[in-house]
Amino acid sequence: MPASSLEDLVSLCKRRGFIFPGSDLYGGLQGTYDYGPLGVELKNNLKASWWKSVVFERDDMEGLDASILTHRMVLKYSGHEATFTDPLIDNRKSKKRYRLDHLLKDQKPAVLEALRAALSLGADAEVGALCGALLKNGEAGEAALKAAKVVDPADGAPGDWTPPRPFNMMFKTTVGPVAEEGSYAYLRPETAQGIFVNFKNIVDSTSRKLPFGVAQIGKAFRNEITPRNFVFRVREFEQMEIEYFVKPGSDEKCHEEWLEARLKWWEDQGVPRAQIKVYDVPKGDLAHYSKRTYDLMYNFPTLGFDEIEGIANRSDYDLGSHTRNQAELGLQATVAPNTDSVSKLAILDQETNKWVVPFVIEPSCGVDRAVLAVLSESFEKEKLENDSERIVLKLKPHLAPIKVAVIPLAKNKEEITSVAKKLKNDLQKLGLGRILYEDTGNVGKGYRRHDEIGTPFCVTVDYDTLGRSEDTSVHGTVTVRDRDTMKQERVKLEELPDFIRRKFA
Amino acid sequence: MPASSLEDLVSLCKRRGFIFPGSDLYGGLQGTYDYGPLGVELKNNLKASWWKSVVFERDDMEGLDASILTHRMVLKYSGHEATFTDPLIDNRKSKKRYRLDHLLKDQKPAVLEALRAALSLGADAEVGALCGALLKNGEAGEAALKAAKVVDPADGAPGDWTPPRPFNMMFKTTVGPVAEEGSYAYLRPETAQGIFVNFKNIVDSTSRKLPFGVAQIGKAFRNEITPRNFVFRVREFEQMEIEYFVKPGSDEKCHEEWLEARLKWWEDQGVPRAQIKVYDVPKGDLAHYSKRTYDLMYNFPTLGFDEIEGIANRSDYDLGSHTRNQAELGLQATVAPNTDSVSKLAILDQETNKWVVPFVIEPSCGVDRAVLAVLSESFEKEKLENDSERIVLKLKPHLAPIKVAVIPLAKNKEEITSVAKKLKNDLQKLGLGRILYEDTGNVGKGYRRHDEIGTPFCVTVDYDTLGRSEDTSVHGTVTVRDRDTMKQERVKLEELPDFIRRKFA
Repeated sequence: MPASSLEDLVSLCKRRGFIFPGSDLYGGLQGTYDYGPLGVELKNNLKASWWKSVVFERDDMEGLDASILTHRMVLKYSGHEATFTDPLIDNRKSKKRYRLDHLLKDQKPAVLEALRAALSLGADAEVGALCGALLKNGEAGEAALKAAKVVDPADGAPGDWTPPRPFNMMFKTTVGPVAEEGSYAYLRPETAQGIFVNFKNIVDSTSRKLPFGVAQIGKAFRNEITPRNFVFRVREFEQMEIEYFVKPGSDEKCHEEWLEARLKWWEDQGVPRAQIKVYDVPKGDLAHYSKRTYDLMYNFPTLGFDEIEGIANRSDYDLGSHTRNQAELGLQATVAPNTDSVSKLAILDQETNKWVVPFVIEPSCGVDRAVLAVLSESFEKEKLENDSERIVLKLKPHLAPIKVAVIPLAKNKEEITSVAKKLKNDLQKLGLGRILYEDTGNVGKGYRRHDEIGTPFCVTVDYDTLGRSEDTSVHGTVTVRDRDTMKQERVKLEELPDFIRRKFA
Repeated sequence: MPASSLEDLVSLCKRRGFIFPGSDLYGGLQGTYDYGPLGVELKNNLKASWWKSVVFERDDMEGLDASILTHRMVLKYSGHEATFTDPLIDNRKSKKRYRLDHLLKDQKPAVLEALRAALSLGADAEVGALCGALLKNGEAGEAALKAAKVVDPADGAPGDWTPPRPFNMMFKTTVGPVAEEGSYAYLRPETAQGIFVNFKNIVDSTSRKLPFGVAQIGKAFRNEITPRNFVFRVREFEQMEIEYFVKPGSDEKCHEEWLEARLKWWEDQGVPRAQIKVYDVPKGDLAHYSKRTYDLMYNFPTLGFDEIEGIANRSDYDLGSHTRNQAELGLQATVAPNTDSVSKLAILDQETNKWVVPFVIEPSCGVDRAVLAVLSESFEKEKLENDSERIVLKLKPHLAPIKVAVIPLAKNKEEITSVAKKLKNDLQKLGLGRILYEDTGNVGKGYRRHDEIGTPFCVTVDYDTLGRSEDTSVHGTVTVRDRDTMKQERVKLEELPDFIRRKFA
């Protein structure tokens, strides 16, 4: 039973130290979030699991970590300067500003029906088609919005809408000690471009042949008009992206293979296929670079199905857009002429002795959305026997922020705490992740707290451990409590490291 | 023998895929660098080693990952808006722009002598004092620069200098779909502030008592006037910062303990104490927030001794600057009045039942400089017996980008490659980091390449492994070659995982 509301997750995240609103000491900076002591471990574990799966465990992948500040030309030739926009609209009356497609999604069916009529569109025209028609029609669009009485959610009344216009979502900043024309750079809106512009550097330094891929994890920035839904739609986020380069012709098969590989990875993180819809994006809705795209849609609490990963066949659009000597390379995609690139982004096919511009398959996943999906999927409110309730995060052990909590029964008894501290150090050496020495001195409270934050095992050191009880069978043992079953068993001190290691194998 | 020149490192980094110049497909974006397939592994290993040392292996630390986009108020009250500047100066003749202190450091002694005279300063006035006097004196400063004939390195002639002025190094960007006054945010110039503004969130969610610390790794941005010296002085960089909170009075002892802990960590990364000078920053040169600061200065090739880490006693300046109710907290530092903060950043001392604003000890280290120091320290050009030479990176095994390279003797013989691939997978499961399946089919070339990139062990699978040779003692064994000694030994296939595991223990 995953979480039933986003609110439950937001509350847990703040209370237990997973995720805090950004800059909230000064009222917050909308669309930014800070990962707290537990959130940073969960996020690191998730990123490490992805890196292991897509770099370490394959023989056809390399890693990269490119800079966030990006040369204007990179985002000019990628197409972002011209097309990376959201439709923006203002209500002159309320002074509120909206992203047009979000505004329309929130309207009642009758309003959309009226809008279709005003724009002479058929009954099958969805929000995307309505936005397109409104953006294209300027003044006529304004009249249509008025005729359809599109409502402003801020006051529930029909708005006095401006004509919608495209708003570029890239953050700009001035680089160097001058504010001249051309001295600005962009914060990258996606990590992908860093891979494309390093294509030649990577091929030259690794001698890779096709097919091979490049993986990257890092921050990206989008100036969202209306950030919302916790870490789902934010202005600063983290991506895990792969650009996989293949010979044209083998792209479709490779696309299917990556879809399968990525669904398996999600399953390994505790997000089962039954909770993910694979959406085969219709031709008419594809991005300009895409030959075909699968969106993986996770069933978020409150939000419903929404995207956690996109797996796109980007054809030869990207390398073709960034390469020099475009004309001689027989590109299949339609690209803008490039007069600034200094390198040829192609690879010599040793069979045919011809230069090939690879096709690209791109599995692209948002780290923050992955954190949210994993939290949601592992969240449970359980009724206990005595009619009480516990919240438990049934995280996969490799994702748990704390792997084991070592709890001394009494926090001021040196004979107990010294054993507990040694145990903590011994378990830490296993290299599983963070082991916590938890000296609150309240075992019951400790169990509840560790249920809520997903710690798979709590180990308690007590007087039996020291050999103070009559039952000699428990001397030299500790209590190991299992998060999911709540069962406790006593394990010999010297066997504990192996016991724990096996649980995480 | 560490590297003898920065140029050797720059060349190796580009050739082998450690570090590439940022956006170089379009002529580069000055002060940005991209970490290639090997650089990203080295950097990740270094960061993991730091995190393990300062979070996992201690019982008094928490982690954090705060956002890069930062509310204006955070950097107003931290003091960055007013004081985070470098002195900027222009030559009207050459149109060149310099950072004043860098310009002065490059002058001949006679020029500095003349400048001291013109500014009526004593013979002990260093570059810092000269800069201060020039900034303060405006027009008179301009005259002094002219009288001293300060030379422009661009053309070697005395410049026609403008009065120097302070230049704020923070990058700004507009947030949200409006460009109104106040709608901009900063890219954080250091990760530290994210920790201070989350102080209450962390205390509330973890119930920490003093002393405890918070560790963070992440990107920071400074609009350097003249980025230079490879990744040493850049506009986008990564930091590993700790803010350690203590009761006032125990700060000095704690400062010494962190100095010791950090020197030990550097030693564990292969940077010995003999290569680091601890510089006790003179009172007059301390930053405004600092009670005392130790700079760790590493002996970089070409550059000489320069900073790799600062360990500052920041007193109660930071929490005192960001807290509300400043007046009632008995702050020791001089802070600007804060009328915007929504929280009290203090902790209740349970012994005295009084609110205490902790002092802060801050060990702050640059990841990129650490990468450079580690590369430099491990770099060797070795003369071999046959008068040839090899370049070898004697990286500590836990830092090596590739832990083991598995090399099949022939790349198209399935009976050999299948054994090699299985071996690669078995070794990968040890969890040591990246194991490379290296199928270039040229063992000698493979060894040289892996020497240069610091791979501790190469494992070769050959016909002896398959049992094809007359010497039955080598059947079922592989050759393991040691990077440092270049010695080879044969190890049984089934014993190899344990053999390798022990080498990395």
